[in-house]
Amino acid sequence: MDDDTSDKPRLTLLGLGAMGSALARAWLAAGHPLTVWNRGPGRAAPLAAEGAAVARTAAGAVAASGLVVVCLLDHASVDEALAGADLRGKDLVDLTTGTPAQARARAAWAEDRGARFLDGGVMAVPPMIGVPGSGGYVLYSGSRAVFDAHHDVLAVPAGTRYVGQDPGSAALHDVALLSAMTGMFAGVSHSFALIRGGGLPPGEFAPLLVGWLTAMAPYAYRVADQLESGDYAKGVTSSLAMMVQGNATLLRTAEEQGVSAELLTPFTALMERRLAGGHGDEGTAGVIDLLTR
Amino acid sequence: MDDDTSDKPRLTLLGLGAMGSALARAWLAAGHPLTVWNRGPGRAAPLAAEGAAVARTAAGAVAASGLVVVCLLDHASVDEALAGADLRGKDLVDLTTGTPAQARARAAWAEDRGARFLDGGVMAVPPMIGVPGSGGYVLYSGSRAVFDAHHDVLAVPAGTRYVGQDPGSAALHDVALLSAMTGMFAGVSHSFALIRGGGLPPGEFAPLLVGWLTAMAPYAYRVADQLESGDYAKGVTSSLAMMVQGNATLLRTAEEQGVSAELLTPFTALMERRLAGGHGDEGTAGVIDLLTR
Ligand SMILES: NC(=O)c1ccc[n+]([C@@H]2O[C@H](COP(=O)([O-])OP(=O)(O)OC[C@H]3O[C@@H](n4cnc5c(N)ncnc54)[C@H](OP(=O)(O)O)[C@@H]3O)[C@@H](O)[C@H]2O)c1
Ligand SMILES: NC(=O)c1ccc[n+]([C@@H]2O[C@H](COP(=O)([O-])OP(=O)(O)OC[C@H]3O[C@@H](n4cnc5c(N)ncnc54)[C@H](OP(=O)(O)O)[C@@H]3O)[C@@H](O)[C@H]2O)c1
Repeated sequence: MDDDTSDKPRLTLLGLGAMGSALARAWLAAGHPLTVWNRGPGRAAPLAAEGAAVARTAAGAVAASGLVVVCLLDHASVDEALAGADLRGKDLVDLTTGTPAQARARAAWAEDRGARFLDGGVMAVPPMIGVPGSGGYVLYSGSRAVFDAHHDVLAVPAGTRYVGQDPGSAALHDVALLSAMTGMFAGVSHSFALIRGGGLPPGEFAPLLVGWLTAMAPYAYRVADQLESGDYAKGVTSSLAMMVQGNATLLRTAEEQGVSAELLTPFTALMERRLAGGHGDEGTAGVIDLLTR
Repeated sequence: MDDDTSDKPRLTLLGLGAMGSALARAWLAAGHPLTVWNRGPGRAAPLAAEGAAVARTAAGAVAASGLVVVCLLDHASVDEALAGADLRGKDLVDLTTGTPAQARARAAWAEDRGARFLDGGVMAVPPMIGVPGSGGYVLYSGSRAVFDAHHDVLAVPAGTRYVGQDPGSAALHDVALLSAMTGMFAGVSHSFALIRGGGLPPGEFAPLLVGWLTAMAPYAYRVADQLESGDYAKGVTSSLAMMVQGNATLLRTAEEQGVSAELLTPFTALMERRLAGGHGDEGTAGVIDLLTR
């Protein structure tokens, strides 16, 4: 039921994809009056039934609230959706995934149109939204004033982390985290290809895999420590020399099992280059230098 | 102090590298009489001071105990080390990392020489060895009789998991886990390259990275479920279409930050191939089919 008798502030949400719909439900469940808009039809109807006001145009949705949250496919879709909207005096929060440069461009664009701007990067999948303790959170950067003014609203769907005035900062964190995850998913894909080829049931193997990745994730602390100290051999227990040796076994096993090693070879090649440079006593931090042009 | 007044069984360990030395210390600390051998000099001396008997030859070390554990660099180094040893009646446990085929070949080789054989894959780094609750463990496959006969000894340095009579099974599990970890490390490397280019302190970013990888590791359960059901769209919350879209942002950010995308592109390419095959509503499980020749 949409009325303004709620004592919670109204907000507007543009975009009702998988993520937008999850966000909308969290705000509705918390009792926030919510105006929604989606480009295509059909996605708003279930939310209307749950109490959302449905605007026919993006401009109309923007007009309804002081706080406007956007969660669309990409940067270009935000341009399209907001083309005709009057943003003067609005607080615009953009949860659309984008690059740091896109976030900075959006901040300048919003300022030109008289709005304050906060960029956000959602570190959660939709089922984690509105679930306290799910571990999901949103990274924010840009206007601290917008973050503070709306903190209680922003904290409804997921935890919040403000990471700086530079509007590009949330996107940089976001993309860095997603990139690491992509590497992990690539590794997981290769891993399942191997065990499936060996006739092991994926369901029996999965707990070992999740446990091992969880146990090894803290390796990132060691890498950070090495990067900060500049001593890439600091605290090394598995040397590059040993890892390159071990890698030969990984590639050979892939061949034995008839699995393409294309997901492993680029990292192998970088480790080998670093090893050839005489850094066998280090860990893998030196690979990071090789990635930076 | 090495004597045979201990009520614990004696064992022999060949190889005192980073891993071998950690194993040796765990057995000595638990009161097991231990005979050690290492090819090069120097590595045995500190262990002698802790009570190990040091054999001058590998053959001599093998002769000292019924249970012979080997932890050397690779398959070839085990051939070299054991070339002159009399293995009749011995129980040989090989903790050297290798491929499944190498483990099967070693099992046949050991049988030819009158030994029973158990292969092992150490899922731990040396600092986890002998530390209860560290999460480290050793995968074993091959002779169940050897595993059962020596279980109490084998359980001293780390947890144990027997994964089947096929001597290659432990190696397949081991390599699959290490391969997934390699992907994760590749992702971590790319991630740090991005944030370092953006001027974020690695030490501040590391907790977010570890937290995010830990939260996303259970993705492997979903993949396993999809592989077992054959329905690659089962339970998908982030579709391939959305991930490919998001990947463009990852690649673009790498370019903005001057970071080579070589660690991300192979997985991107496979996701795009699968998407082009009309599977946009699936997750990433279909990539696994593309890896198998
Ligand atoms: N799903 C996740 O796991 C997840 C996690 C973290 C972050 N995110 C981010 O959240 C954002 C939304 O993701 P999602 O999962 O909700 O995606 P989605 O389910 O694919 O929905 C995309 C949304 O964007 C709209 N849209 C696309 N092009 C448009 C255009 N040109 N003009 C106006 N609207 C347009 C779609 O409207 P129509 O209905 O009209 O097509 C739809 O509302 C993305 O940036 C994504 O990277 C998603
Ligand atoms: N370190 C880890 O994090 C880790 C984790 C899991 C599994 N592992 C596995 O454990 C095994 C040992 O690793 P590590 O870390 O101990 O390696 P390491 O520190 O490099 O030690 C290698 C050992 O192998 C010996 N060796 C090498 N070539 C030999 C040859 N031709 N003949 C006889 N001995 C030879 C070395 O003897 P010298 O002293 O004479 O050179 C040394 O004892 C490897 O298979 C590795 O993959 C290691």
